[in-house]
Amino acid sequence: MDSTYVVGIDVGGQTSKIGVVDARGTVLAQTVIRTDTYGEIEPFIAELSEAVKKLIRESGTEGKVRGIGVGAPNGNYYTGTIENAPNLRWGHHRVEFSKLLSEAMDGLPVALTNDANAAAVGEMTYGAARGMKNFIMITLGTGVGSGIVINGEVVYGHDGFAGELGHIIVEPGGRNCGCGNNGCLETYASATGIRRTALNLIDNTGTPSVLRKIDRDKLTAKDVSIAAANGDRLALEVWDITGHYLALGISTAVVVTCPEAVFLFGGPTKAGDLLMNPLKKYLDKYMLPAMKDTKVMFSRLGEDAAILGASALALNAIAALNHK
Amino acid sequence: MDSTYVVGIDVGGQTSKIGVVDARGTVLAQTVIRTDTYGEIEPFIAELSEAVKKLIRESGTEGKVRGIGVGAPNGNYYTGTIENAPNLRWGHHRVEFSKLLSEAMDGLPVALTNDANAAAVGEMTYGAARGMKNFIMITLGTGVGSGIVINGEVVYGHDGFAGELGHIIVEPGGRNCGCGNNGCLETYASATGIRRTALNLIDNTGTPSVLRKIDRDKLTAKDVSIAAANGDRLALEVWDITGHYLALGISTAVVVTCPEAVFLFGGPTKAGDLLMNPLKKYLDKYMLPAMKDTKVMFSRLGEDAAILGASALALNAIAALNHK
Repeated sequence: MDSTYVVGIDVGGQTSKIGVVDARGTVLAQTVIRTDTYGEIEPFIAELSEAVKKLIRESGTEGKVRGIGVGAPNGNYYTGTIENAPNLRWGHHRVEFSKLLSEAMDGLPVALTNDANAAAVGEMTYGAARGMKNFIMITLGTGVGSGIVINGEVVYGHDGFAGELGHIIVEPGGRNCGCGNNGCLETYASATGIRRTALNLIDNTGTPSVLRKIDRDKLTAKDVSIAAANGDRLALEVWDITGHYLALGISTAVVVTCPEAVFLFGGPTKAGDLLMNPLKKYLDKYMLPAMKDTKVMFSRLGEDAAILGASALALNAIAALNHK
Repeated sequence: MDSTYVVGIDVGGQTSKIGVVDARGTVLAQTVIRTDTYGEIEPFIAELSEAVKKLIRESGTEGKVRGIGVGAPNGNYYTGTIENAPNLRWGHHRVEFSKLLSEAMDGLPVALTNDANAAAVGEMTYGAARGMKNFIMITLGTGVGSGIVINGEVVYGHDGFAGELGHIIVEPGGRNCGCGNNGCLETYASATGIRRTALNLIDNTGTPSVLRKIDRDKLTAKDVSIAAANGDRLALEVWDITGHYLALGISTAVVVTCPEAVFLFGGPTKAGDLLMNPLKKYLDKYMLPAMKDTKVMFSRLGEDAAILGASALALNAIAALNHK
């Protein structure tokens, strides 16, 4: 067991993080490369595989790495492909990611899933979900992603795309979403959605706010967080609206899958009680009474959660192969 | 295999149906007893067990019945109990249903789940979901129930209550629901909800309708169906509203679990295209574009679906026991 090492890769829109990890979840070495400098997949795979090989050499694990796990936007566990990923410059078409990376890595097996599922595997393997068989991981970022674990396994659904909680419709006829629908949770509860809520209140209310002094093109969820912490009424209203929609989405996901806990992960959770307090208020309103004891909490996984999740995915895939 | 027989029981608010079923899903004999004449559980279990024993004798399967499967409102697969089932006169408290029935049946093993999960098992074993690993069964009746199958297994969730799609909130702040919340799918898409929609349009619009001539206490979803089939404008509007909310609920369930198909079962589905046409119209509006190929169709299981589902549950439970 101790001589098994895997590589975990977190592919993001701007950068991709790479780590060599042992079977206990210790990151032996890590590095970062740019993602957004590549318009095509081939040169990106070339640099990625070079960086991985270099990291393996530096960490002294040559010949001992058994597989690679990758979390990426729209990564499909079944097909090993990335499709229609608007945040990846080379991700607009169908990319045979696992196959290309495995070939570049001399046949090393590659397991791929979307970034939110990878975070769920990380939470289950190394975080507060250890020992839990049924939980949901919601990642708040540019969008809203989710990983759903039922009976101890990530739900990939019929075609590998399950767990798109970001596209639960929480406001029929509401805000335009990139998916083509209206009123999706992601248009309200992502960092981008929080920004939209703030701009909406700035434009359509007379509430005084320090946020009005910020260039509207540069206003971020973090600005809203700082203003709210200082008692800014408009900013507090933004978090209240965010908590309202997030509670609706969580209540829905809970009533469908009945998990033990829901974990929230990502930038906006740094707002802490500014988000958690309104969220709890509205969960109390919307959660099915019989399910009100479902725990809803922030993930305590750190910055390397995505690498750890991807590496745990690789470890699980290797274990499954050995059982075949 | 052929010498294995099981008993399937469908416990409903008014009557309970009992069948002796072979391993191929042939109902050898069936009978019905009243449920609603019993205010307490003990005399009901006494009559139920007598009826089961008589049916086993009559079907010539004495000594060959290996187990009993039961589908009942709020039946909990993990605990074998029925709790807070408002439609069962003896179901207001926690009832140790499996234990009591097994004792009355000389120790024969009893597997219990809710009626919607039993229908899902029936659809998977004998219906159009044969061979499907991921699907949702929605039962429209007095309420809206659901059984969710993921990776070939019914989702029971953390505490045995998963799959309560009837309590997805489709209209925040909407109609009062028996669960204590507002705007649950069940308050719009159940037979009772359809009735409420009709009464609402009668009270709050001037649309002429034959439904206005029916005693409002006796108006049913079936009346709405008959009127709509004759082109009654108000009745058609009722089905349009029903399709709208059902589409919202289904789109949500699909985005969370990504199934291959969604099956609808129960009384209101007898309305046929009156329901299916508006449902498809709104599914086209609300379904996540990437999941628009999800099949949504009526179950073709007949009247004995519930007995078959409960018996399949028993067969599965016996198979699981044999693998331990």
